[in-house]
Amino acid sequence: MSDFRQKALDYHQYPTPGKISVELTKPADSAKDLALAYSPGVAEPVRAIAEDPDNAYKYTAKGNMVAVISNGTAILGLGNLGPLASKPVMEGKALLFKRFAGLDSIDIEVSHRTTQDFINTVANIADTFGGINLEDIKAPECFEIEQALIEKCNVPVFHDDQHGTAIVTAAGMLNALEIQGKSLRDAHIVCMGAGAAAIACMELLIKCGAQREHIYMLDSKGVIHTRREDLNEYKALFANNTDKRTLEEVIEGADLFLGVSGPDLLSPETLKLMADKPIVFACSNPDPEIKPELAQQTRDDIIIGTGRSDYPNQVNNVLCFPFMFRGALDVRATAINDEMKIAAVEAIRQLAKEEVPDEVKKAAGIDELTFGADYIIPKPMDPRLCQRVAKAVAEAAVESGVAKIPLPENYMQD
Amino acid sequence: MSDFRQKALDYHQYPTPGKISVELTKPADSAKDLALAYSPGVAEPVRAIAEDPDNAYKYTAKGNMVAVISNGTAILGLGNLGPLASKPVMEGKALLFKRFAGLDSIDIEVSHRTTQDFINTVANIADTFGGINLEDIKAPECFEIEQALIEKCNVPVFHDDQHGTAIVTAAGMLNALEIQGKSLRDAHIVCMGAGAAAIACMELLIKCGAQREHIYMLDSKGVIHTRREDLNEYKALFANNTDKRTLEEVIEGADLFLGVSGPDLLSPETLKLMADKPIVFACSNPDPEIKPELAQQTRDDIIIGTGRSDYPNQVNNVLCFPFMFRGALDVRATAINDEMKIAAVEAIRQLAKEEVPDEVKKAAGIDELTFGADYIIPKPMDPRLCQRVAKAVAEAAVESGVAKIPLPENYMQD
Repeated sequence: MSDFRQKALDYHQYPTPGKISVELTKPADSAKDLALAYSPGVAEPVRAIAEDPDNAYKYTAKGNMVAVISNGTAILGLGNLGPLASKPVMEGKALLFKRFAGLDSIDIEVSHRTTQDFINTVANIADTFGGINLEDIKAPECFEIEQALIEKCNVPVFHDDQHGTAIVTAAGMLNALEIQGKSLRDAHIVCMGAGAAAIACMELLIKCGAQREHIYMLDSKGVIHTRREDLNEYKALFANNTDKRTLEEVIEGADLFLGVSGPDLLSPETLKLMADKPIVFACSNPDPEIKPELAQQTRDDIIIGTGRSDYPNQVNNVLCFPFMFRGALDVRATAINDEMKIAAVEAIRQLAKEEVPDEVKKAAGIDELTFGADYIIPKPMDPRLCQRVAKAVAEAAVESGVAKIPLPENYMQD
Repeated sequence: MSDFRQKALDYHQYPTPGKISVELTKPADSAKDLALAYSPGVAEPVRAIAEDPDNAYKYTAKGNMVAVISNGTAILGLGNLGPLASKPVMEGKALLFKRFAGLDSIDIEVSHRTTQDFINTVANIADTFGGINLEDIKAPECFEIEQALIEKCNVPVFHDDQHGTAIVTAAGMLNALEIQGKSLRDAHIVCMGAGAAAIACMELLIKCGAQREHIYMLDSKGVIHTRREDLNEYKALFANNTDKRTLEEVIEGADLFLGVSGPDLLSPETLKLMADKPIVFACSNPDPEIKPELAQQTRDDIIIGTGRSDYPNQVNNVLCFPFMFRGALDVRATAINDEMKIAAVEAIRQLAKEEVPDEVKKAAGIDELTFGADYIIPKPMDPRLCQRVAKAVAEAAVESGVAKIPLPENYMQD
């Protein structure tokens, strides 16, 4: 076993198994403390919540608690390994929520027979939490699941593999287009991959101004077009009325390429077919659709992003999801709507244009970080992210009418 | 609002709402840390668990995590106020698990339509946790729910309102019988109340040696007897073939009275009908079936226990449940069986016979604690409880064949 793999196992095993614990936020030392925390004192908050459910935000941990919920059907790049095997990832996500946004977060792995059974289970426990982050659920079920849970739950539900990826991708792509002097409205787009992330990315780009008929999406069978009869309802929305059938045909003259497919599926020859000043997001992880060094050897007018931390322009969901929930919970948003997603895109975009503090450069191990082809998205360790993204999200929630309380005074001020 | 009630609300609200938080047990400061905690390092424990589910105990928080689950249908003495209103109690229980046994514990409140729906929901999320503590679920549904979940789940399931209460009650009663010079086998028993706790207490007393035909149980309609046609299957097990119909009739000559019913339902006149050297557990909370001072004025040969901390002999579930789960989880017991319950009874009993450390007396605010009529059960703040009860439970699990791993070396040694 490689050194890194052993280190990863050791990290998870020692000194105690796993990555999270539950701790007490209140004194519990004396009999007096316990009379307040439990019987008889606890009857008071119980009565208060029975009178007004919103009092749960006042007297329990609900308002700062996010559940990370999975059925393990699409774990990272590893596939369907079942709910229990997904637990380290879900605990990892809980760790990121706490580390980046101070949110308490607990993982829940769900076994189920049918999609409806999963939906029902999550809906039944949803009120326990301030928000629900769905994770690693395979397409196309994830679309139906998210939609049903949004309708059933009183708290925000967000499938991060879809929308977190889409938001960070859109922020990076919009900045890349700006640098390349192109507009999203006119961009010719190729999306290789037709899973949860691919579809969400394209839907969000359309909401940001891209034109659906300029998008060519490919799945394992090639270009998704109007004559295909094997499309689920989500892919069907991207069926292009075209005679083109291959990647080579649709990529000719393309401005934007998004890969959420598999390693090395974009060859240098194919890359050469793209328009001048192309933008390539090769997000297959850990092995991208084309290696950045090969892409840059092939054409020097390219801007390239990947899912990897060891190259510039990492498309990393952690730029979004902790702060999306931070902002949503801080104004008790009942949903995460398009306005909040687009506000997050803009906040992430804008931050990349600002001067980068030395501590961020140091954490990234990079001397120079200036808005440009090698720096279109902020770095995960940028401490300004929480402030900017959470604030933008919370403001958008208030303005779009899904917030149950106003912005806290001086919220996320410098 | 009374000073205490306001204090209880303040305790729950400030400085942060609720009583628990989720914290990180591993470093998460650098990009290197995060590469171990999340992608790509997290793929290693995922693969290991996919190969062998038991690796979840090695690489995740599962093995030290107890879910406290309720539907809020029988909250403390407050009744059916719904799942969300039960949240402060469930968080309180999580607090007690951590405080007394170092177990990580999280509350889950379940909304549901049918009993089957509740069972299904809990079974679907059960693998997330090392064990499941059911709480504040009304009878008779709680019996069906617990039984079904025990069958469906791979982890121990324990309805504390039933068995925690029964274990502590049995420990106290056995010690009281010893002090009064009586035997459980010959004891004439009256149980006032026929809910979850009452039925579980009587079932456990029978397992400890009591004779079913010596037990008279009463519900709101009086004595439960074989001619009644309104009994559910759980009460029916206690239908006594008797012509007696009232408390006064069945209590005549009784050795043991257990009240889990309501305030002041045992009058001094009725108490006088009991046998010599009677034992009364008046556990209605906060107002017992008879006030201890009144009981003792009525007869000086009595031993009396209550659910209250301000009288001697408090029947408090916290003497059992944290350590029951501590012991069960430490040997990965797949269930909590009768052997483990009886081992807990014995461990609690024996501890009350030992010399009490000064720190325990101080915490209890009592100068003298010696095994006898006023000290038949240990005090909740006794730090020896975890060691004694968890060890007894773990040993019983191993001996009865439900433990998946042996007792850890030097487990809970002095």
